[in-house]
Amino acid sequence: MKWWGWGDPAKRAELGDVAVAALRDELGAAEPASRAALEQVELPEAASLPPAIVEAVGPTSVLTDREQRLLRAAGRSYPDLVRLRGGRLEGAPDAVVLPGTAAEVKRVLEICMTEGIAVVPFGGGTSVVGGVDPARGGFERLISLDLGRLRDARVDRRSLTATLGPGLRGPEAEAALAASGVTLGHFPQSFEYATIGGFAATRSAGQASSGYGRFDALVTSIALAAPVGELQTLETPHSAAGPALRELVVGSEGTLGVITGVAARVRPVPEQRRYEAWMAADFESGGEVVRSLAQAGALPDVVRVSDRAETRISLALSGGQGPRRALASAYLRLRGRLDGSLVVCGWEGDRDSVARRRALATRRLRAAGAAPLGAAPGRAWERGRYEGPYLRDELLDLGYLAETLETAHQWSRLGELYEKVGSAISEALSRRGTPGLVMCHLSHAYADGASLYFTFLARASAGDELEQWRAVKTAACDAIVEAGGTITHHHGVGRDHLPYMRREIGELGVEALRAAKDRFDPAGIMNPGKLIPDSA
Amino acid sequence: MKWWGWGDPAKRAELGDVAVAALRDELGAAEPASRAALEQVELPEAASLPPAIVEAVGPTSVLTDREQRLLRAAGRSYPDLVRLRGGRLEGAPDAVVLPGTAAEVKRVLEICMTEGIAVVPFGGGTSVVGGVDPARGGFERLISLDLGRLRDARVDRRSLTATLGPGLRGPEAEAALAASGVTLGHFPQSFEYATIGGFAATRSAGQASSGYGRFDALVTSIALAAPVGELQTLETPHSAAGPALRELVVGSEGTLGVITGVAARVRPVPEQRRYEAWMAADFESGGEVVRSLAQAGALPDVVRVSDRAETRISLALSGGQGPRRALASAYLRLRGRLDGSLVVCGWEGDRDSVARRRALATRRLRAAGAAPLGAAPGRAWERGRYEGPYLRDELLDLGYLAETLETAHQWSRLGELYEKVGSAISEALSRRGTPGLVMCHLSHAYADGASLYFTFLARASAGDELEQWRAVKTAACDAIVEAGGTITHHHGVGRDHLPYMRREIGELGVEALRAAKDRFDPAGIMNPGKLIPDSA
Repeated sequence: MKWWGWGDPAKRAELGDVAVAALRDELGAAEPASRAALEQVELPEAASLPPAIVEAVGPTSVLTDREQRLLRAAGRSYPDLVRLRGGRLEGAPDAVVLPGTAAEVKRVLEICMTEGIAVVPFGGGTSVVGGVDPARGGFERLISLDLGRLRDARVDRRSLTATLGPGLRGPEAEAALAASGVTLGHFPQSFEYATIGGFAATRSAGQASSGYGRFDALVTSIALAAPVGELQTLETPHSAAGPALRELVVGSEGTLGVITGVAARVRPVPEQRRYEAWMAADFESGGEVVRSLAQAGALPDVVRVSDRAETRISLALSGGQGPRRALASAYLRLRGRLDGSLVVCGWEGDRDSVARRRALATRRLRAAGAAPLGAAPGRAWERGRYEGPYLRDELLDLGYLAETLETAHQWSRLGELYEKVGSAISEALSRRGTPGLVMCHLSHAYADGASLYFTFLARASAGDELEQWRAVKTAACDAIVEAGGTITHHHGVGRDHLPYMRREIGELGVEALRAAKDRFDPAGIMNPGKLIPDSA
Repeated sequence: MKWWGWGDPAKRAELGDVAVAALRDELGAAEPASRAALEQVELPEAASLPPAIVEAVGPTSVLTDREQRLLRAAGRSYPDLVRLRGGRLEGAPDAVVLPGTAAEVKRVLEICMTEGIAVVPFGGGTSVVGGVDPARGGFERLISLDLGRLRDARVDRRSLTATLGPGLRGPEAEAALAASGVTLGHFPQSFEYATIGGFAATRSAGQASSGYGRFDALVTSIALAAPVGELQTLETPHSAAGPALRELVVGSEGTLGVITGVAARVRPVPEQRRYEAWMAADFESGGEVVRSLAQAGALPDVVRVSDRAETRISLALSGGQGPRRALASAYLRLRGRLDGSLVVCGWEGDRDSVARRRALATRRLRAAGAAPLGAAPGRAWERGRYEGPYLRDELLDLGYLAETLETAHQWSRLGELYEKVGSAISEALSRRGTPGLVMCHLSHAYADGASLYFTFLARASAGDELEQWRAVKTAACDAIVEAGGTITHHHGVGRDHLPYMRREIGELGVEALRAAKDRFDPAGIMNPGKLIPDSA
């Protein structure tokens, strides 16, 4: 991963001249932003760690060099990128510790509890909500506990489950599963870097989660190493033996302990994959088709409906290179219909299942007045599915703010949520003197509701990027809780959403989390300052 | 509900002469058992309650008469029935309190916390694991908090969810939903009496849960009144905002507080319902068909495969009256094939969905060598689906022990679980000098596993029934935990499974539940002695 941005330093998602011109038209000209050089980044001096930690994991598994500390000093949110690019980090771990077994994790946590050392569990480092911020919570020392060496994979073909090490990155897990002819089907935009442990710790949802299920729904059992001991839930989740403790660990974001193993449902590698695009008359009618398919139990595995603004901008920006070219040709063909809503559907599975669901979706889309765009733009979307964060780096280089956030609600409240959040973002950008573009797509559909994923672009307020971001983010979050939506559908809580947890789960809900935290991590060393508000 | 047994006093599930003869053949002749008369049952004198409770709910909502106390003094497990029929109760609530609103529930809990009065939340009183036992946990006074007046129902047709009061019995909830054209599809054997609050509190599973989902999977949000405050989870469950607190309340069995409202997924009332039966060559091949359908995402809504013993006995017992007659005719036709395994499949939904899944199941069953028995025995099963507990009363009258228990595991471990638990029950019965019949069916199938439901019959040890029961129950539970299965797939924990919770969830799991309990119910008044073991 680039230290200052997203992904493979060799990859770029260059915006062509047409796209850059379109951006200038929409947002005004921006001043290209500079980036600090690696040696300009100021890192606090590293505190030294007790020798017991080196003894626990071995000397080659404790890293203290500048670049390794820097790579674990931040996630990949917009504010993280602003800080990294500006060389203005708030802090960094004193060391990166890489245990090789669950027993070593346990030993390290015991030492840290005794010694009073804060621990930030680290998987792919892809958090966009401050989930791996090196916040010390009053401790003088902090380690980044990198799970990268815990990468076992074991498939139970008969039960269609797999037990996976938390450090497996998305592609590594899929490669191990493919050897047994199965897949998790979990493909979030962070797939190339994010890990199994991170998927579970943050209740991740992937682009194909309408079909395969959110990651929390895939987990059948989980192992947690907490400072005071270990929890291993039963191999079968189909139990009436009290509250589901699996659901206490899933989503705990490293605040209760470290996830050392995850068993998850898998499926046979799909026989067929079909991706297609349609142009619906508008966002509402596209959404209604998705609702009807969800409630008929016949959703595509991937389904997303872009609102008018997102449709217009994604088609305009696709005047570039690579996978976006196919979208561009659709754009040219459809100049006259640019007030429509782009719908992308992907079906995966055996031929019968794909054919049946595709036929139903086709019928419903036609009945709603949507126009078919064919397979090319669908496949283009698929090829570019992990491109978003690379594109963000380009936009930042050009001097633009590019940020996303997501929420969800029941179908009956979704329209109101869409209106309120979109307006809040738009107005907040204008109030800052940087009027912007606010786009949204509906994705991750369920019988009872769906998620809304907002993207917004504006000229960055040079030198003032964090204040600009905070003003807009706050306005959006306030609008979400006001409309009764969840503060996060799949990004997690981390530090950024912490102030909204009291509204999300109530005072007694916070108390429930604190009670678990106090029991599992009485010293409070686990991922301080994330997820759980302090007691009132 | 009869005070001494199950259900409507006007209903019986009489066993005909053929069935009684078959029982004698199998188990030996038993001495018909007598029942105490209502006035012979000894009830402890009721302690008096603080006037604040009467003020909180009104004088007509506090019941202290003998029959009302008796009706809330026990659930409907085999040991409960033995105690009730023998007039030997261990205790009874001092009063039955019927709050009319969630605010009244809250007020009553506050008073009970202040005054030190134990509270047993009460829905349908159908627990078969001691979940409503009036255990006092050291308190001198105990009330049964009957939720029977909280029966609101509100349907969100657009989101296919319904908000339901905890006191709604199964048929009441379905009637309210049917008025909006929807159904929960939740039909456990206790359906006629069990309540929405009880379904949620115990993680119930219904006979059609292979299709509609377990009750825990239906709950989208939940409201809990705890002694220290209230918890209301967000309307949408599709959230990454930390651990799912909904899953902490679901399954909490009244130990954290009282469930005052449940929002759950509903579906359109099915256009079509088809029930059929097949005779598979054996239990294993029948189970393999179910696994293949589950993993193809094409399960029937109801599916159960009886092992050889259950097949033989249910057909033999069906020489009686009523719905079992159709099974009897299948029995007569199939005399030559009685070593097979009866498979019952039920499909519900729109015509396409029923046709598609039925066609696949038919293909797979035929390929496995199963013989079709047609619709009549399937419909017979459907008509008799709530008859089991009525039949148990008849068996007890005849002097037989009749008990059921259930577990679940992943497919790869299910065969071993079946063998071990069946042998343990059988051997324990023989060791007591009452060799019996042990039967099992596989039901509630999932892609990753299934439940096993055991029924066992033997001559009751007159005067010694509870010791006989305990010896067999203990042997079965030990075998379950030894084989790694869950101690309960859908009956819950209550008092009977409490000793196995440490094995089920581990020491830190118990600590997690205790931490929540200590925070929600610091005085420990809520359903003492159930679900949560004491701290080590």
